Amino acid sequence: MKRAAASNALRPRVVFSGIQPTGVPHLGNYVGALRQWVQLQQQPDTRLIYSIVDLHAITTPQAPEKLKRLKRETLAAILAIGIDPDRSILFHQSSVPAHSELMWILACTASVGYLSRMTQWKQKLNLSPTSRLEDRPVGSRLKLGLLSYPVLQAADVLVHRATHVPVGHDQQQHLEFARECATNFNHAYGPHLVHPETITPPVHRIMSLTDPTSKMSKSHKNDRSRILITDTPDEIRAKVASALTDSLPGISYDLATRPGVSNLLDILSIFDAQQRSPAQLAQAHAETHPRQFKAMVSDAIIQGLHGIRSRYVELLDTESAYLDHVEADGAQKARQSAEETMQLVRMAVGL
Amino acid sequence: MKRAAASNALRPRVVFSGIQPTGVPHLGNYVGALRQWVQLQQQPDTRLIYSIVDLHAITTPQAPEKLKRLKRETLAAILAIGIDPDRSILFHQSSVPAHSELMWILACTASVGYLSRMTQWKQKLNLSPTSRLEDRPVGSRLKLGLLSYPVLQAADVLVHRATHVPVGHDQQQHLEFARECATNFNHAYGPHLVHPETITPPVHRIMSLTDPTSKMSKSHKNDRSRILITDTPDEIRAKVASALTDSLPGISYDLATRPGVSNLLDILSIFDAQQRSPAQLAQAHAETHPRQFKAMVSDAIIQGLHGIRSRYVELLDTESAYLDHVEADGAQKARQSAEETMQLVRMAVGL
Repeated sequence: MKRAAASNALRPRVVFSGIQPTGVPHLGNYVGALRQWVQLQQQPDTRLIYSIVDLHAITTPQAPEKLKRLKRETLAAILAIGIDPDRSILFHQSSVPAHSELMWILACTASVGYLSRMTQWKQKLNLSPTSRLEDRPVGSRLKLGLLSYPVLQAADVLVHRATHVPVGHDQQQHLEFARECATNFNHAYGPHLVHPETITPPVHRIMSLTDPTSKMSKSHKNDRSRILITDTPDEIRAKVASALTDSLPGISYDLATRPGVSNLLDILSIFDAQQRSPAQLAQAHAETHPRQFKAMVSDAIIQGLHGIRSRYVELLDTESAYLDHVEADGAQKARQSAEETMQLVRMAVGL
Repeated sequence: MKRAAASNALRPRVVFSGIQPTGVPHLGNYVGALRQWVQLQQQPDTRLIYSIVDLHAITTPQAPEKLKRLKRETLAAILAIGIDPDRSILFHQSSVPAHSELMWILACTASVGYLSRMTQWKQKLNLSPTSRLEDRPVGSRLKLGLLSYPVLQAADVLVHRATHVPVGHDQQQHLEFARECATNFNHAYGPHLVHPETITPPVHRIMSLTDPTSKMSKSHKNDRSRILITDTPDEIRAKVASALTDSLPGISYDLATRPGVSNLLDILSIFDAQQRSPAQLAQAHAETHPRQFKAMVSDAIIQGLHGIRSRYVELLDTESAYLDHVEADGAQKARQSAEETMQLVRMAVGL
């Protein structure tokens, strides 16, 4: 895109990504996003900005003490997987007021009609995709935070002048909206905000172990449906052993007819030292007995997550002062990054 | 109100008031609000916080250079009328990010239905009071900033834990909404925000000189319709001399049948050394010739605004460094006032 290229050519890549403070991530979060966060640290000339987006968490009701604990656990988990706070800026969103500040400025040119057509607020209220703002029960239940959070999300990205944002399929709409916000702002005040481009994450979409036709999720009521990245080897073995598969003979890869087995092949492929595809692994293990196959999958996960659990426990149990330091240091760096943009923005708007 | 009394009893009065950065105020602004700001400085044990609300100004398009100039002129005018920055905290809203920060938190419990029923966004878009969000042209024209600015206004008041807010009739709805925001927050997170009470301003409502059935206004196309508080004596005399009155004999006070003459009596009453009411003044001058009566009114205004113009010009022309100092000092004090509240708020929410 011409408009993006113009601004982006001037500076190195800046990657922004956010994660909700839901505590310890599960395998789906890890494979879908966090592993990529770690890998990006190898890329030279790339500034990395990772945020625990606690201001987004409060668009739905939260118990304060629990939120505080989950923020800390999320931070410890991110460090435990290998995010280096000297390489990446890691911070709690609420420690950088510029996110809300830029949000207000963007809100002044963001269309209510556009926001009302977005799908996520409807999903979060369990409304049909055809629901509209004027439907009687919607107006009373919908809070402004839930309707307007895509504008805060846009501000998260734009306030750090991110050039690249890793986004899953369900967030494409929001990144498109962030570009729209940048366009609106730049049209009114000059070319100060950067149009972020998408980094498409690896295609792997990890499914629930107990219900392999839906995504692995934090909100599923059954703990066995997901593997947390801090699960013990025994927990991992027990969960994989009880994973729902089928009674067809042997191992084969077919998402439509064998979703459970295929999900395990996807997981195996992610951690395969030889980087074989799920289909290749199915061929290699076509005759393997299901129980033995599950044991292999467990071993691969245990190996792949090795060290995360002990580091996580260590951080929370004995390195409280270090976590405090990471929080303060990350907040300070993120504030500086955001302030550079806000100075341009305030000047441009005439504030 | 019990709920307000509970929190307010613990601390001295805190008055918050805001003014749009529209440059030099006219007589209506002065009499309706600003003169009261000055008078409140005489009250002991009252903390005064006055803000030039530039973040509200941008809910409608602004030319950046002009906005910057108008902010400065508004500041100079407020100082010129007698606001003492050592007695009152005087600051530009955009220099205190906590206003936007608290706004986001309040937005998470503010109902879209409530906001959609408020009247001001409809007025600003020249829509009928029965317009609704779902009307086709509304969705595309309405920006989120305009729909949601009552939440920012609520944050302005609540972030300083104001106990009292002087509000005109047209802002009653917004102060009621601010109380609603405080109630929602306190219900969810504990009794941390203070319910502000209304200070009713003097009843005087100054009307346009050229069209005495509508309010004196900055946006009226005819300069002669309003007296600016920095007008020269000659300008004041000329504007009053050309004020629309009527051809009935003598002077009498009757808003319905003699709006022009009654408006001049209102103005005379405001500046009357003996504090006579408009009706009393009408009686005293029942036989005065209209031209002589207008001269008296001009003299009273000139006397009442004496010194404002010269101080205003002096500040803008020769005291740029002092204005910079007032801005920086006010910003710092206002940030401190807001930060005290935000620490309570962040703790309560679990951020």
